Amino acid sequence: MIILGIDPGIATMGYGVVEKRKDGNTAALDYGVVTTPKDESLPVRLAMLEEGVNRILDKFSPEEVAVEELFFTKNITTGIAVAQARGVILLTCVKRCGRLFEYTPMQIKQALTGYGKADKQQMQQVVASILRLKSIPRPDDAADALAAALCHAHTARFGGLFAVENMTRTRGKNTAAVSSFRKEDV
Amino acid sequence: MIILGIDPGIATMGYGVVEKRKDGNTAALDYGVVTTPKDESLPVRLAMLEEGVNRILDKFSPEEVAVEELFFTKNITTGIAVAQARGVILLTCVKRCGRLFEYTPMQIKQALTGYGKADKQQMQQVVASILRLKSIPRPDDAADALAAALCHAHTARFGGLFAVENMTRTRGKNTAAVSSFRKEDV
Repeated sequence: MIILGIDPGIATMGYGVVEKRKDGNTAALDYGVVTTPKDESLPVRLAMLEEGVNRILDKFSPEEVAVEELFFTKNITTGIAVAQARGVILLTCVKRCGRLFEYTPMQIKQALTGYGKADKQQMQQVVASILRLKSIPRPDDAADALAAALCHAHTARFGGLFAVENMTRTRGKNTAAVSSFRKEDV
Repeated sequence: MIILGIDPGIATMGYGVVEKRKDGNTAALDYGVVTTPKDESLPVRLAMLEEGVNRILDKFSPEEVAVEELFFTKNITTGIAVAQARGVILLTCVKRCGRLFEYTPMQIKQALTGYGKADKQQMQQVVASILRLKSIPRPDDAADALAAALCHAHTARFGGLFAVENMTRTRGKNTAAVSSFRKEDV
């Protein structure tokens, strides 16, 4: 089974594609980043992000997607831009892959190291070890995305311990309600 | 010229469609809300939102779109959900209408009342007066969206005083950069 992990971002979005084999082993098929230029407007950057995500989905056709939840402690302004990017990422993925899961940073750390507050270096070493990479995956965003994919690969076998969202059951049942109020007032 | 104004939201997104006539007058063609159910997962709600926005774009084919900027003072958690919705709204609009503009709440108040801290009631009365509506437009989200559209209609003639983003010049020039780092490390 092929799992796509995503670490959301507007300037740099990390992605990691992991194959979970029948013997339980996991291997990295690909990892990297989608980048958008800072001097471009937000709407255009969002459209570029969608295009980048679609290229990854086209290339690997993942059966399941794991997206990291946002966690802000510092800059709210940056956080809002990342949240807008994350909305586009969720939309693009759910349109192509019904099985979409969200994990908090703490859940990902817990799943990979057994400790919800593991530091970045430890996490990256665990990711490299599990995937038998010769070196720590770079950049950090790609390593984070691989960690999200591995978190899903590891927890899904326990009945989706941390699988907050399983889109399959809900997708396609509902349509948006557009309510016009014009007639009442004009 | 037809202008679509949007007040972003995940549970309730307000929209207002305004026609700016050659004599300078503005008229409300439609206003209302797109709603998504609270018990649905975020990715599914985002897909529903996209569908709702597309239905409005299909129906009115606006030449320009004005989207209100986010402004958080209270709940950051709610704010993050709204920001994810706003990302989807910007993406959906920019894919269909290259002329997309963003206005802060203060700019909208300034443009309509001359006072950046006008209260909600005053704003709604001004919106109703300008559009010659028999009553205050409801719900509040639709009134806010009409205000955004009117802000754009009024300021665009002064050379886009508050026109933060003009997508036409930038759209389509760039494509996303997807950088795979796998070969270096595996």
